[in-house]
Amino acid sequence: MIRLAPIPAGLPATVPFVGPETLERQAGRPFAARLGANENGFGPSPRALAAMQAAAGEVWKYGDPTNHDLTRALAAHHGVRPRNIVVGEGIDGLLGLLVRLTVAPGDVVVTSDGAYPTFNFHVAGFGGCLNKVPYRNEAEDPQALLDRVRQVGARLVYLANPDNPMGSWHDGTVIRTMLDDLPEGTLLILDEAYAEFAPADALPDIDADDPRVIRMRTFSKAYGMAGARVGYAMGHPDLIAAFDRVRNHFGVNRIGQAGALAALQDRDWLARTVAQVATARARIGAIAGDNGMTALPSATNFVAVDTGRDGAFARGLVDALAAEGVFIRMPGVAPLNRCIRISCAPDAELDILAEALPRAVAAVSRA
Amino acid sequence: MIRLAPIPAGLPATVPFVGPETLERQAGRPFAARLGANENGFGPSPRALAAMQAAAGEVWKYGDPTNHDLTRALAAHHGVRPRNIVVGEGIDGLLGLLVRLTVAPGDVVVTSDGAYPTFNFHVAGFGGCLNKVPYRNEAEDPQALLDRVRQVGARLVYLANPDNPMGSWHDGTVIRTMLDDLPEGTLLILDEAYAEFAPADALPDIDADDPRVIRMRTFSKAYGMAGARVGYAMGHPDLIAAFDRVRNHFGVNRIGQAGALAALQDRDWLARTVAQVATARARIGAIAGDNGMTALPSATNFVAVDTGRDGAFARGLVDALAAEGVFIRMPGVAPLNRCIRISCAPDAELDILAEALPRAVAAVSRA
Repeated sequence: MIRLAPIPAGLPATVPFVGPETLERQAGRPFAARLGANENGFGPSPRALAAMQAAAGEVWKYGDPTNHDLTRALAAHHGVRPRNIVVGEGIDGLLGLLVRLTVAPGDVVVTSDGAYPTFNFHVAGFGGCLNKVPYRNEAEDPQALLDRVRQVGARLVYLANPDNPMGSWHDGTVIRTMLDDLPEGTLLILDEAYAEFAPADALPDIDADDPRVIRMRTFSKAYGMAGARVGYAMGHPDLIAAFDRVRNHFGVNRIGQAGALAALQDRDWLARTVAQVATARARIGAIAGDNGMTALPSATNFVAVDTGRDGAFARGLVDALAAEGVFIRMPGVAPLNRCIRISCAPDAELDILAEALPRAVAAVSRA
Repeated sequence: MIRLAPIPAGLPATVPFVGPETLERQAGRPFAARLGANENGFGPSPRALAAMQAAAGEVWKYGDPTNHDLTRALAAHHGVRPRNIVVGEGIDGLLGLLVRLTVAPGDVVVTSDGAYPTFNFHVAGFGGCLNKVPYRNEAEDPQALLDRVRQVGARLVYLANPDNPMGSWHDGTVIRTMLDDLPEGTLLILDEAYAEFAPADALPDIDADDPRVIRMRTFSKAYGMAGARVGYAMGHPDLIAAFDRVRNHFGVNRIGQAGALAALQDRDWLARTVAQVATARARIGAIAGDNGMTALPSATNFVAVDTGRDGAFARGLVDALAAEGVFIRMPGVAPLNRCIRISCAPDAELDILAEALPRAVAAVSRA
């Protein structure tokens, strides 16, 4: 009865992520600790909060469709030109636009098996063919990605650095080498959603006009503004300009634009957040150790905890913690799925985790 | 150097609208009266404003990707089921998703010449072939649209009721008849962005499960929240469900969701806004008359004013008013482009218009 175009007609009805609100409604009560979506409970800069509350009073106006002020501030911050930057509705939205711009139906795209599902959702959504290589030592494997790119003639290759869901990272020199070995005509998507948490040497020095790579950043993580939906991409001006051909020009909300601009300018708050996240990572590591599990090193605001068991055990833990009011997630594919993934958060929420985890472990071990 | 997929490679670099902020930067000063984007300067409900300011404090959380609470409230408001409704990043975003879902490259889409440019932008953006029929008596012409649909075998047909940019409207019975005459397999997009301003009998009674039509609504106009980026579509559950295959699931920002929910519940504020807009429409009509021009009847929060001259004169007026600090727009195609389009606004802004318009008319008449 409803006639869809061929590509969407062939897509599954699945969604990339089930949100915590859906789980809360199913459980009939809110989570006591929200540690599953790599949100940043240390919150946005008070200056960003004030800017958003002030901007709410002007919400009758559309946001500036060029995101002019934010784009210029980002350019100054990164030492690039405004034409190297496009602002969009989070990295999710920008990934969708980028795939639309570069992937024709049947084009091959390479990523890692277990990497960001929303990227895969977009590739499938535009008729691209996903080709996946395994993680190596809990990290995305640049050499394997490159080998596969050459083998299949990939149009796009995705790499997150630091990585989600494992929290691992590569030195910037590894990324630079990957870039130099990239075949002509292949574009590297470097998803740096967690860049602000990473050691400085994890962030490669790349000319903003380099046509081989596009970097994705966001205000959702270190800036504590996931609900504001503001991300940006940095790349060659021709590629950046192409977003204007397809993007939802008035799509970035006015309040988010104002908040992001203020957040960017509060470097002290960002430094404070990064320090708090480091402390929280260590505490999550200690909680894991107290429960006979091993926290993997992380350059992000979450920790992948190796349960030392299998995917069924980890799934059991996620479910048992949910029953305890603690929202966490876990990697989707073996062997990564022996881990659980816990977001950094203020102490009050980690207290709840610390109390609930032993009960969850006991419950799953009994089962 | 930058390789785009074939469809985007063939798209122009043009954008649907130049925002007022860009014009302000070009002029080196802000507009004194912002009357060009059909924004609603009477603003959102104080309850919506309070809800947004409160939600800013929780902006570290992603918004609910299912837009659950807002969807249920909208369903109750319209007397439909939640599965008849999908919430998205404004009607602009939803139009893009709908075109993506239904239009394959080469499919023909029918609209009116001079109707909403952003819809055309999306059709071109997905490789659809636009086919346009002229307005008739300053209104979109359902019979001409239908005839063209049959002639070209259109997949989609777009009709705004009330219409933008002319403010005209059809009785709901006309829309119902159009629907009943629609060929099998053609989907009607009924853009009702201005529905709340229209007489009740302009809104057709259509079964929400009718697979022949999808209706678009927004919080940008009557609810005064253009900058929040919240719109919704109502239609057959199978079509609504299909949006989940392609939409940016976390795309609707958390603050906008909270604001829209509160705005929907404040019916008194909406009624007050509608009354204020009616008063402003009458005043714009009087201002037009004072300047030897004729306001066309409008069922929206803007007025198309017939200058009685041609497109060059109207363009001159738009530019002369901009030089006076007054932002307005005008229809894009002849013969509609003999008109200027002025958004309803509080008296302070219409005072500025009333003062500036005679000077603008004089300046353009002299030129």
